[in-house]
Amino acid sequence: MTNRTLRIAVVGAGYWGPNLARNFSASPDWDLAAICDLDEDRARQVSDQVGHVPVVPSLTELLAADDLDAIAIATPAKTHFPIAMQALAAGKHVVVEKPLADSGSNGQAMVLEAAARGLILMADHTYCYTPAVLKIRDLIAEGELGDILFIDSVRINLGLIQPDVDVFWDLAPHDLSILDFVLPGGLHPTAVAAHGADPLGAGRSCIGYLALPLESGAIAHVHVNWLSPTKIRQMVIGGTKRTLVWDDLNPQQRLSVYDRGVDLGKQAAGRSDRRDATISYRLGDTWSPALPEREALSTMASEFASSIRTGQPSRTDGEAGRRVLAVLEAATRSLSQSGSAVPLGDKEREMEAAR
Amino acid sequence: MTNRTLRIAVVGAGYWGPNLARNFSASPDWDLAAICDLDEDRARQVSDQVGHVPVVPSLTELLAADDLDAIAIATPAKTHFPIAMQALAAGKHVVVEKPLADSGSNGQAMVLEAAARGLILMADHTYCYTPAVLKIRDLIAEGELGDILFIDSVRINLGLIQPDVDVFWDLAPHDLSILDFVLPGGLHPTAVAAHGADPLGAGRSCIGYLALPLESGAIAHVHVNWLSPTKIRQMVIGGTKRTLVWDDLNPQQRLSVYDRGVDLGKQAAGRSDRRDATISYRLGDTWSPALPEREALSTMASEFASSIRTGQPSRTDGEAGRRVLAVLEAATRSLSQSGSAVPLGDKEREMEAAR
Amino acid sequence: MTNRTLRIAVVGAGYWGPNLARNFSASPDWDLAAICDLDEDRARQVSDQVGHVPVVPSLTELLAADDLDAIAIATPAKTHFPIAMQALAAGKHVVVEKPLADSGSNGQAMVLEAAARGLILMADHTYCYTPAVLKIRDLIAEGELGDILFIDSVRINLGLIQPDVDVFWDLAPHDLSILDFVLPGGLHPTAVAAHGADPLGAGRSCIGYLALPLESGAIAHVHVNWLSPTKIRQMVIGGTKRTLVWDDLNPQQRLSVYDRGVDLGKQAAGRSDRRDATISYRLGDTWSPALPEREALSTMASEFASSIRTGQPSRTDGEAGRRVLAVLEAATRSLSQSGSAVPLGDKEREMEAAR
Amino acid sequence: MTNRTLRIAVVGAGYWGPNLARNFSASPDWDLAAICDLDEDRARQVSDQVGHVPVVPSLTELLAADDLDAIAIATPAKTHFPIAMQALAAGKHVVVEKPLADSGSNGQAMVLEAAARGLILMADHTYCYTPAVLKIRDLIAEGELGDILFIDSVRINLGLIQPDVDVFWDLAPHDLSILDFVLPGGLHPTAVAAHGADPLGAGRSCIGYLALPLESGAIAHVHVNWLSPTKIRQMVIGGTKRTLVWDDLNPQQRLSVYDRGVDLGKQAAGRSDRRDATISYRLGDTWSPALPEREALSTMASEFASSIRTGQPSRTDGEAGRRVLAVLEAATRSLSQSGSAVPLGDKEREMEAAR
Repeated sequence: MTNRTLRIAVVGAGYWGPNLARNFSASPDWDLAAICDLDEDRARQVSDQVGHVPVVPSLTELLAADDLDAIAIATPAKTHFPIAMQALAAGKHVVVEKPLADSGSNGQAMVLEAAARGLILMADHTYCYTPAVLKIRDLIAEGELGDILFIDSVRINLGLIQPDVDVFWDLAPHDLSILDFVLPGGLHPTAVAAHGADPLGAGRSCIGYLALPLESGAIAHVHVNWLSPTKIRQMVIGGTKRTLVWDDLNPQQRLSVYDRGVDLGKQAAGRSDRRDATISYRLGDTWSPALPEREALSTMASEFASSIRTGQPSRTDGEAGRRVLAVLEAATRSLSQSGSAVPLGDKEREMEAAR
Repeated sequence: MTNRTLRIAVVGAGYWGPNLARNFSASPDWDLAAICDLDEDRARQVSDQVGHVPVVPSLTELLAADDLDAIAIATPAKTHFPIAMQALAAGKHVVVEKPLADSGSNGQAMVLEAAARGLILMADHTYCYTPAVLKIRDLIAEGELGDILFIDSVRINLGLIQPDVDVFWDLAPHDLSILDFVLPGGLHPTAVAAHGADPLGAGRSCIGYLALPLESGAIAHVHVNWLSPTKIRQMVIGGTKRTLVWDDLNPQQRLSVYDRGVDLGKQAAGRSDRRDATISYRLGDTWSPALPEREALSTMASEFASSIRTGQPSRTDGEAGRRVLAVLEAATRSLSQSGSAVPLGDKEREMEAAR
Repeated sequence: MTNRTLRIAVVGAGYWGPNLARNFSASPDWDLAAICDLDEDRARQVSDQVGHVPVVPSLTELLAADDLDAIAIATPAKTHFPIAMQALAAGKHVVVEKPLADSGSNGQAMVLEAAARGLILMADHTYCYTPAVLKIRDLIAEGELGDILFIDSVRINLGLIQPDVDVFWDLAPHDLSILDFVLPGGLHPTAVAAHGADPLGAGRSCIGYLALPLESGAIAHVHVNWLSPTKIRQMVIGGTKRTLVWDDLNPQQRLSVYDRGVDLGKQAAGRSDRRDATISYRLGDTWSPALPEREALSTMASEFASSIRTGQPSRTDGEAGRRVLAVLEAATRSLSQSGSAVPLGDKEREMEAAR
Repeated sequence: MTNRTLRIAVVGAGYWGPNLARNFSASPDWDLAAICDLDEDRARQVSDQVGHVPVVPSLTELLAADDLDAIAIATPAKTHFPIAMQALAAGKHVVVEKPLADSGSNGQAMVLEAAARGLILMADHTYCYTPAVLKIRDLIAEGELGDILFIDSVRINLGLIQPDVDVFWDLAPHDLSILDFVLPGGLHPTAVAAHGADPLGAGRSCIGYLALPLESGAIAHVHVNWLSPTKIRQMVIGGTKRTLVWDDLNPQQRLSVYDRGVDLGKQAAGRSDRRDATISYRLGDTWSPALPEREALSTMASEFASSIRTGQPSRTDGEAGRRVLAVLEAATRSLSQSGSAVPLGDKEREMEAAR
């Protein structure tokens, strides 16, 4: 495909749309072709901020434009599926604000549709394109941490109690999309156990815990909470070689890589009784890599363009969005079963087979 | 009972015994009568540090002394039960290093035996007697936090991998005994769900999560971990009025009480559709109470004496020790069932009935 | 004076001008009448962001407008004096970005000119209008801290080495204007001693220390530094009753008020030898007041309007700006005399007499 | 000299003596021969803790013992000089608790006496032997920081107001001895300027600032304070290549080495007007070296033995102690002259000449 500047329209001028519009507008890869929203005033405000691009209230009219390459969807989650399907049917590449869809099956249908038409479907998992998360992905990919032993993610805050979704669907997509991004091969838990509480009687979980055993014997765990008076956004990723701590609220030292850990020596057969003798503890240096300063959405916009041009999936493709949905759906099911572990493998296998 | 100074012997001169010996020796309530350990050299070393009290290798001989009021047990957990039963049979009051026993049924038997003989059985849940935890208990009892909504406890560290117990039995007794101490009426979860991981192949869980739904709709959660490169000991206790954060590693501000939270207004009948309109957020001041400096074991020693003199149970009585064991046992059961929630109510009710 | 909306123009469309334009434009007290800059393109960009107000390249033309009440000056420091004098001569009220002028005498002349014409001259000491500093001023004024014993301010960072001013003139105006704002009666050191270093050979001090003895026997001290790899912005204000710590980089607890300190008892005559017996130490609670969220410049804009309407000086009036300049000039003199204490009293008294 | 175990006596059984006794007693290099204190009871208590070494009340008797190699002096500062001189006259090596003496001239006399007799005189600058400070010294010596640009040391706390010395003589010896230890060639400021305050009327400075210009154009600065409600012990050492931050109260990351800083390019002759164009900023990684755990006094004891055996001065020899005294005396003089810079060079040169 040529290197010509691609043309994109932003659909949805609410909370996130202006950010998308600003970044696609500023990107050397993209021309921002239009803002599309039923609320024409709101769309015009966004348009004014990025240099007066056309406002198109009708999605159908928008998609009819032959010179439009792609759309970025930032509408309410329920509408992601119909809008994306209509756009794919019109031959447009699509990037969708998280969550990819309002259900796993809709997400799966979008993935299949894009594949069938040879179009790019990308999830806007914005956090994945922050300098910190990109660095974490690289460190793991390069083997700096060794094999992953555990991931513990905490995202708590005095947050807005959402009217329509619980704390899992509100906050955990961030953690899950990051896990999917940094784990080699993506996030494939064998099961999901979710524990929630609604002690205020808000009608939905305001506090949530997710336990995600991984095939390797490792465990991932997520704590999300709307009721904490203090704000914590921290992820610990333990590996056989090193352990990384990401403290997103410490701009002076966001990432710390600890050469500290436990080593278990290999045992001769039949000597399991003497295992303890071979435990050793590493207490080495700590290292905090410098991070470039770049807005995540700007990197995301480049990636979307590059994906279209090369035909390769982006690092947060539709499949990644679908995996996040699969975990969230399993979490909802686990919640309704007193936290029983809901296995993910079978359904996953079906989905993989369907592709 | 008279106010005469009470006489106690410390049984076990290993890791914890010297601390008990030093504090009972320094206490105005107590005379330290003897150190008892099969390893006479070890016992003598402890004796030398506290002013040359007698060393008595034989437990039977020790308990035969008429002028001995009580013993403090600091031997390996497996031996707590037989030693305590023998001491109770000899008419001695007993305080036992945590955990109270190696099983819930043994703990229960000890509780029943002490009750039957009118003797005091106390668990040395040392953490409960730190100035911070005593203050937390008071604040909750006085209603400063309102009703409890959630408790989240994190105790992670690059810790020693124990040869005989997993991370739940090694570290969680601290958290559970504290929960039992500060919650009005003690810790009574409706169920226990435990998720663990042993990614190094150590033969037992090195990472553990406990979800403990409470009857009120609140949730308690504990994260214990031997593999974390950084040390965190933090407990957040959210209430309807205020939320408390205990950061045990910040000596300059261990306790913070936040007047921050979410208020849900009461609804008129049939108006549930408008509930969201009545959510409000408090963003008030933070307050950090000054804490006295006193060694926890010194307070524990006073409490044991006072309990013996008044005949009233101590704040960490045998029953408290038994409740902690009940949760740990349920956790072990949950682990073996892929993290299924193990209900606690029935067995608890049986136990209560048995008393 | 009436309560009609006042009309203001922003002079200078560089770094700070857009912030002034945005805040005066959004203020209910003000109509933003024009943007004035010799660089018409730059002025137009600012104008576009605030709703297309007129661009006027000529200051003379701007000041000729009868319906203009005031100007806000955000040009290079050297030009503050001539622009302000021209505006005052034209009968306009004036607010000036810090520092008020490029010399104490120019600042003094501006103060006298405004007084002679009955116009308001205000220094835009923006930091003083942040919620934290406003709260500090209130706490001190209400006697919450008691008498001030010491103030220690640290403002260090890997900062840009300025081409024309040293680190004292670049960073210390922030600290000095805050000291002037929170100390009852303003900042009146008896002397200024400045110690600087230029270890890189940059041609000006990159590291600076200011010692400012106050008449009461208290001391204020300022550390400014362009070469620190870590960023610290912290001020400790010790009082006889309480001590306040302002950590501007900790959004979760910017202000902490410690009920901790030393009390010296009063002595009977001739008993000075026993003074030590009467020293006592307070170790009380810590309190962190909640702070409202409001942009400092918005509060500054309201204050300027209110000052014009009532004819009362603002809390950062021209006199405050002049006091800051007096300290900076004394610091420069001290630097050239190996850090000798340069007394401030005499010159100050002359200035006061001249008013 | 042979490698036989050396024999030492501790003189002074007050605050610091027991620590010395414990460490010399445990050292493989030393036999603890006696405890010497006029207060025989106090001496006996110390003796009991270290295994019942002889108690000798008389210094003269102690020094008469032919088999005694050395003494460690931990008596009040005023008595350091006479005791050390008597011990040196008796042919004993001497290590002295900080400060070396109560005046620079006494310290100088001790240095000369030891040199004349070929004996080792060492200052127990304990902080210098902590793992953190030893590491700092190594990093600087190995050129890891490049040339030193500035050192800023803060040691503040709600401290005990001492009856006999001001905050400079109480706390600054720590900072000064550390500076002397880590700076290649020792601490040689060209002048000392001291600013103090006694706002409570305690009769001596409770807050102190020391500015110490170094010959290289660098500056060292020390802030000591008894009135701060919060405890800070932090030293920043800026170098041309890297900058080190030592936060002694952060056990999880005591040392941080920042590859961050400012680089000024070299100028062609006559091109000084374009200097600014060549400023660049480094924003590299941060590194926190692991530190061994070893008690500082244990390392000090080894160093004293090694110094005696090799005849080489220790890293904190009498000369180092004298340099610290010279700065403290100059600080006292500066205080009495309103903070004027007191030059150190001349007197220093005299002293050096006298040796």
